[in-house]
Amino acid sequence: MSAPSAEKLAAVLDHIDAHLDASVERLFDLIRIPSVSTDPAYAEDCRRTAVWLAEDLKAIGFDASVRPTVGHPMVVGHADASTGPHVLFYGHYDVQPVDPLPLWNSDPFEPTLVPQENGDTWIVARGASDDKGQLMTFVEACRAWKAVTGSLPVRVSMLFEGEEESGSKSLAPFLDEAGEELKADIMLVCDTDMWDDKTPAITTMLRGIVQEELTIRCASRDLHSGMFGNAARNPLQVLSDAIATLRAPDGSVTLDGFYDGVRPLPGEVEERWKRLPFDQKGFLNDIGLSIPAGETGYSVLEQVWARPSCEINGMWGGYTGDGFKTVIPAEAHAKISFRLVAGQDPEKIRAAFRDHVRAHVPADCSVAFAVHGGSSATVMPIDSPLLQKALGALSEEWQCEAAVAGTGGSIPIATVFKDRLGMDSLLVGFAKFDNRIHSPNEKYDMSSFHKGIRSWARILAAFAGRQP
Amino acid sequence: MSAPSAEKLAAVLDHIDAHLDASVERLFDLIRIPSVSTDPAYAEDCRRTAVWLAEDLKAIGFDASVRPTVGHPMVVGHADASTGPHVLFYGHYDVQPVDPLPLWNSDPFEPTLVPQENGDTWIVARGASDDKGQLMTFVEACRAWKAVTGSLPVRVSMLFEGEEESGSKSLAPFLDEAGEELKADIMLVCDTDMWDDKTPAITTMLRGIVQEELTIRCASRDLHSGMFGNAARNPLQVLSDAIATLRAPDGSVTLDGFYDGVRPLPGEVEERWKRLPFDQKGFLNDIGLSIPAGETGYSVLEQVWARPSCEINGMWGGYTGDGFKTVIPAEAHAKISFRLVAGQDPEKIRAAFRDHVRAHVPADCSVAFAVHGGSSATVMPIDSPLLQKALGALSEEWQCEAAVAGTGGSIPIATVFKDRLGMDSLLVGFAKFDNRIHSPNEKYDMSSFHKGIRSWARILAAFAGRQP
Repeated sequence: MSAPSAEKLAAVLDHIDAHLDASVERLFDLIRIPSVSTDPAYAEDCRRTAVWLAEDLKAIGFDASVRPTVGHPMVVGHADASTGPHVLFYGHYDVQPVDPLPLWNSDPFEPTLVPQENGDTWIVARGASDDKGQLMTFVEACRAWKAVTGSLPVRVSMLFEGEEESGSKSLAPFLDEAGEELKADIMLVCDTDMWDDKTPAITTMLRGIVQEELTIRCASRDLHSGMFGNAARNPLQVLSDAIATLRAPDGSVTLDGFYDGVRPLPGEVEERWKRLPFDQKGFLNDIGLSIPAGETGYSVLEQVWARPSCEINGMWGGYTGDGFKTVIPAEAHAKISFRLVAGQDPEKIRAAFRDHVRAHVPADCSVAFAVHGGSSATVMPIDSPLLQKALGALSEEWQCEAAVAGTGGSIPIATVFKDRLGMDSLLVGFAKFDNRIHSPNEKYDMSSFHKGIRSWARILAAFAGRQP
Repeated sequence: MSAPSAEKLAAVLDHIDAHLDASVERLFDLIRIPSVSTDPAYAEDCRRTAVWLAEDLKAIGFDASVRPTVGHPMVVGHADASTGPHVLFYGHYDVQPVDPLPLWNSDPFEPTLVPQENGDTWIVARGASDDKGQLMTFVEACRAWKAVTGSLPVRVSMLFEGEEESGSKSLAPFLDEAGEELKADIMLVCDTDMWDDKTPAITTMLRGIVQEELTIRCASRDLHSGMFGNAARNPLQVLSDAIATLRAPDGSVTLDGFYDGVRPLPGEVEERWKRLPFDQKGFLNDIGLSIPAGETGYSVLEQVWARPSCEINGMWGGYTGDGFKTVIPAEAHAKISFRLVAGQDPEKIRAAFRDHVRAHVPADCSVAFAVHGGSSATVMPIDSPLLQKALGALSEEWQCEAAVAGTGGSIPIATVFKDRLGMDSLLVGFAKFDNRIHSPNEKYDMSSFHKGIRSWARILAAFAGRQP
């Protein structure tokens, strides 16, 4: 079909509103299958969930199937369209375990509607938000387009995974096998939060990471600090000396070449971030702090989204029990990670870090490093046409400027698709900060579900080229 | 009696040689009572050991008695003399547990004589060295003086403790009660090592200590380093920054006023240390190191005996298990101690340390300190007449210059007597480095026992003013 008219979109949105109850019923059916991926006792439930999803996609008109893996199966579906780009939607049908069960106010796998004072209604259940509710916003948007117009505005493929909550061990092998089938112009993911209750958000910047563990060895055994103190090198002192020099007084990271390739924030992104209703003081106060610890001259949002970091995630050595032991330990250990931004090469950062530490280790001591993974940052350019179209569609639905967000963390699925298939990811989510995912009484707001479906319906239309 | 003549001393030494077998038999009887102080199952054995010692002192002519405490009893004995100073000899009759029992080559409480290739004989048993064998060298010296001359060259008191291996909890209360009775011109202790197989040693310098534990708190909870990395202060970084500044590049400790009151080594001590057969390279090589880590310009012996130190004894925070967790911990911890030398005030050092750390803690973070004890260094002036007399006596017996040693560690008994009764301690021991105290197959060389008795006999004579 050609680019849809405004009238067709309006009809699709009306259809969504008129059939919301049926959409909710389908979500409830999906939630009722306890697809806990980490517990082998639920393996058959995971398989049933995959079958349910494949059948549901077929009902909409997708060419869909369950694909076995060594773990829980994948679900893949395709629906062609004559116009527009090819999008791959990713979601996961597995859920976290429910314990501690006594803390739930209702059966985790029997979705319960709980009216709220603000007029909204919570859908309370395990997976209501993460990720069954969010996943179904996209499926229901496709269903409405098919029901009203008989086709989709753009070509859509879907991939549902059943191991996201337990390490995604089958994902990389599956992409090796099915990569060409899944390769599209962009990946859409619905597994993130709104900016706030009223403001939708697209996450376009994901920091990468380099993780290192190091062991500094000095004496060949633990020593008595009375007998040897002063003369014998103390590895905890060596380690502290090395760590203390990782950050300059202005908060910048001192590794040689650390900021090579790091570019300033594009003007449009900087302007959008300045307009975001972000309470920097409140953000820090919530965690008991008041002074931003990163580079001076950068806002807190820039520090956590757009600037690379160095963090000591763990450190240990010597006697750590009750009381006191006057030991000079033989070894000291640390786990240290760097969050990376676009332009930084993880392996160059890793090498610079090791050189830095080695330069602090005396000639009669040694240091050993262990790799704990690394990945590049990913960023979708702010002037990407699909990003701009999605922003426009969201702003129309929510009647406010959609937020362009970064995330300080890494999102493995985005990195895997970027690395393996060269695909950028557009992360649009309708979850709220208080959804208690992974915790008892997980919930999804009915408004998230309803306006999420409408948002995707608009985004698909926008991708197809509909003029606002 | 007046100062003993050289003839009388010669007769005493001959008596010791002639009656060595009987001395060994008494030591064996003492060893056979399993006085393990830390295990309540041996409480009656500890009491029996105290009674045995009191009876033995009475047999020599001491006014001796067993003194109950809330723990194992003390043994106190006194023998007057008309001349010379008043000395208090301290020893402990309790021993360490024997496990692991399978590693012993003979019954730990049945002393076994094991001939050695060098012509010496080992007495193998728990307590053979620490401290029953060493303790009895002094008792046997007194017995010989009494047997040959009918009296002692100087006034002698004895204190035997039964809780040295389990915390000495009754000692301070006992000194509060019996301090005046025990106060003497000097305390003699036989619980240390020779310098080497041929060279006796007197330990005259004991470092003091200040022990601190600190907790740095930043955020009010553990944080995800992706969400908060850069913006949230990392307590492990703060702790490392503070620790890295504790030592200057030249190895000196940077605390404000740290070296106030520290005086250079007296010339005679410095000269004696230079003459000591000490292999600085071998000392470090034995522990896998080659570069002295203390202040430049000081020998290794000076660094461990005569210079104050700062050691990180333990440090921990964040994730320390297998794998990786990208956490910014809320807290970081360290146990840090300072070895002190004469002239340093423990409480001033403690305050300077706390000020130093506080100056490194950002205004929105906090630090809490916990005290783990502290004590001043003790030093006996090299020109002390009793020390010089003891050195002369030892040099005569061993036919070489006796070593004047320091010890980097603290010896609690010396500190307790210095603090409570103002008494200096003369630490003379005949144990060897390989005596395996606290370990299976503990041993004491017959030569240590025999020449130890002779050494004390000479020291008592020297104290009384005998001219060499």
